[in-house]
Amino acid sequence: MPLVAITRILRFNAAHRVYNPALSDAENDRLFGKCNNPNWHGHNYTLEVTVEGEVDPKTGYVIDLGDLKRVAERELIVHLDHKNLNLDVPFMSGTIPTTENLVVACWRILAPKVAPARLAKLRLWETENHYVDYEGR
Amino acid sequence: MPLVAITRILRFNAAHRVYNPALSDAENDRLFGKCNNPNWHGHNYTLEVTVEGEVDPKTGYVIDLGDLKRVAERELIVHLDHKNLNLDVPFMSGTIPTTENLVVACWRILAPKVAPARLAKLRLWETENHYVDYEGR
Amino acid sequence: MPLVAITRILRFNAAHRVYNPALSDAENDRLFGKCNNPNWHGHNYTLEVTVEGEVDPKTGYVIDLGDLKRVAERELIVHLDHKNLNLDVPFMSGTIPTTENLVVACWRILAPKVAPARLAKLRLWETENHYVDYEGR
Amino acid sequence: MPLVAITRILRFNAAHRVYNPALSDAENDRLFGKCNNPNWHGHNYTLEVTVEGEVDPKTGYVIDLGDLKRVAERELIVHLDHKNLNLDVPFMSGTIPTTENLVVACWRILAPKVAPARLAKLRLWETENHYVDYEGR
Amino acid sequence: MPLVAITRILRFNAAHRVYNPALSDAENDRLFGKCNNPNWHGHNYTLEVTVEGEVDPKTGYVIDLGDLKRVAERELIVHLDHKNLNLDVPFMSGTIPTTENLVVACWRILAPKVAPARLAKLRLWETENHYVDYEGR
Amino acid sequence: MPLVAITRILRFNAAHRVYNPALSDAENDRLFGKCNNPNWHGHNYTLEVTVEGEVDPKTGYVIDLGDLKRVAERELIVHLDHKNLNLDVPFMSGTIPTTENLVVACWRILAPKVAPARLAKLRLWETENHYVDYEGR
Repeated sequence: MPLVAITRILRFNAAHRVYNPALSDAENDRLFGKCNNPNWHGHNYTLEVTVEGEVDPKTGYVIDLGDLKRVAERELIVHLDHKNLNLDVPFMSGTIPTTENLVVACWRILAPKVAPARLAKLRLWETENHYVDYEGR
Repeated sequence: MPLVAITRILRFNAAHRVYNPALSDAENDRLFGKCNNPNWHGHNYTLEVTVEGEVDPKTGYVIDLGDLKRVAERELIVHLDHKNLNLDVPFMSGTIPTTENLVVACWRILAPKVAPARLAKLRLWETENHYVDYEGR
Repeated sequence: MPLVAITRILRFNAAHRVYNPALSDAENDRLFGKCNNPNWHGHNYTLEVTVEGEVDPKTGYVIDLGDLKRVAERELIVHLDHKNLNLDVPFMSGTIPTTENLVVACWRILAPKVAPARLAKLRLWETENHYVDYEGR
Repeated sequence: MPLVAITRILRFNAAHRVYNPALSDAENDRLFGKCNNPNWHGHNYTLEVTVEGEVDPKTGYVIDLGDLKRVAERELIVHLDHKNLNLDVPFMSGTIPTTENLVVACWRILAPKVAPARLAKLRLWETENHYVDYEGR
Repeated sequence: MPLVAITRILRFNAAHRVYNPALSDAENDRLFGKCNNPNWHGHNYTLEVTVEGEVDPKTGYVIDLGDLKRVAERELIVHLDHKNLNLDVPFMSGTIPTTENLVVACWRILAPKVAPARLAKLRLWETENHYVDYEGR
Repeated sequence: MPLVAITRILRFNAAHRVYNPALSDAENDRLFGKCNNPNWHGHNYTLEVTVEGEVDPKTGYVIDLGDLKRVAERELIVHLDHKNLNLDVPFMSGTIPTTENLVVACWRILAPKVAPARLAKLRLWETENHYVDYEGR
């Protein structure tokens, strides 16, 4: 059967502060600038979840998109949406909440949950001008 | 001379919490739900600034767009971008930071600064699914 | 209090055939071309619902956006989404399902349901290249 | 019959130089900056053409969108697309090719051609960050 | 010569019903939910056609984009646009018209037609929230 | 450490003429059609710059996005924005300014400047309907 990738796009809104508590205030300011505002700032994040698999001849689907959406919402979105990435999200605890670290954390949670499809890529947009891609490497 | 409206789009990222300190926690929860997260959440805001005026025959412009951008950045964006709307923004002090209240506050600051053009409309997007419009009425 | 307009965007996917049963096949072909395919075609519709009102000082809202979304979904979207506009939608019965007629029908249903706010405009996109606006006139 | 506005979006790509030949080089540089590059620059323009009228009960249309597209292409787009606004476009001759002047010129050509509908608005985007609106006033 | 990929985006509007005629009505309802509406529903599809090849030093092109567009329109779009994917499209006959099956069918038709370039990827959007990718594997 | 790709999007507006000075006028017309307008035309270009690297545990970054933006602006955008690709851009001299040739030229300039990250992909949009990808092969 053909190998097809299917992508579902989800959204969440969150606050964060980018800083490393192991560093001095001056070093944090130098490294993170306005992203280090102690009173937080926030974003509308967009997450593209791509899974890959053979097309099931019975359904014509790689995966039921409703199922994929429900898994991503249950495992990721409810923990991220309208939250503070530094304070409210258990799986980001102890991690600098950059887009890079966030996409890797999302991968680790979601990858075991989409079988028999395979998680192939996560793309996470933080603003309309930048995004990160992670493929589990 | 023809009367033309010209719109410049600007963006900022901010954190906020939607709640009314005069109300009980239970009432705030009932009214504002997840927008009332005490640890904040945030958005990528998009602001469309529309000014109207006659076209200047010397320049073919209603207003120099670079000037309009600089005014909007100086008066609004530097005070809002990477900030907390509840804690960091003097002109939002004492105001519930809903999109409605924010667009009205932006109008009051910007309207006197765009002469001889006239501020005609502000459109403020909080997410890709909703926006508010204010025309100074 | 300031008068602000707030817009919520909703989406639905539907099939339709544009034709007038009172006319001959030849006249329908002449008027509607490929939109008259007897086996139907379809669209991803996007509906922008704009209501206007004074900002409530208790909430900072014109209307609770969650309420507006629920009303629009209950009154419009559940009747339109994944439906055939010619066959499945009671409020389009006997009407040629053009974008123009659809936006007017949506207005008539939704306008009485958004009080104390006032329905100010509906914008309905049928493709990314065209949309209709209706303000109840 | 209900009064509905319908908008068709069209696109064209053009080169231009923003300068006023009646002014000195220094004054042009001061007024127009990098837009005054003597070797030209260019844009992907997007034009939203809005006409308004009563819905025809025979067709459910304000205007046949195919007709509107053909009129706008014949009157405007073929004269603008892949052209130089300063050198190639008769109806821009002697005019500084700002977005403001261009939208007014387009209005004057198109307004008499859309009867029995009425040209209600032109919106012209020059970049994704700014646009002008003209309603014939 | 450098190996570059070039992508042309095309659009079509179609109706479909997602169901498997070999299964019972109850099983179809369980598998396909509202996508199984017997009176059809529809979408605005967006197809991204990516071909890859060396840049021709004579033209600076991998392929003439006008040629690529004409091939894709002749082979795919005219058979899909304003059609019913279940009833009107010969190359989808006997196939459940999911996005996955549709993108594979498009690949099989288009891949032999773009030489000397090589068809590298098809991306097919069914809504703004999901898309499928196929690379011929 | 995880290997993540991060993409920054930049924009520039430029004029160009697509033609090969080594060919006759007739041959240029045949090959390039309206893109060969001797008075130029232009575009709003969008450039997606993707770099790849391990996430730095000290910052949570692959690269500081502000640094990446400054490098891309200094090396590419200031030389391209509001310029004529045939006349004003030293690194395009002697090259037919197609999107393919432009993306390869941008790669050659930018690739040595993003260490220790690695330039992984450039995507260059010339219109909203087509783009090219180059990965340095």
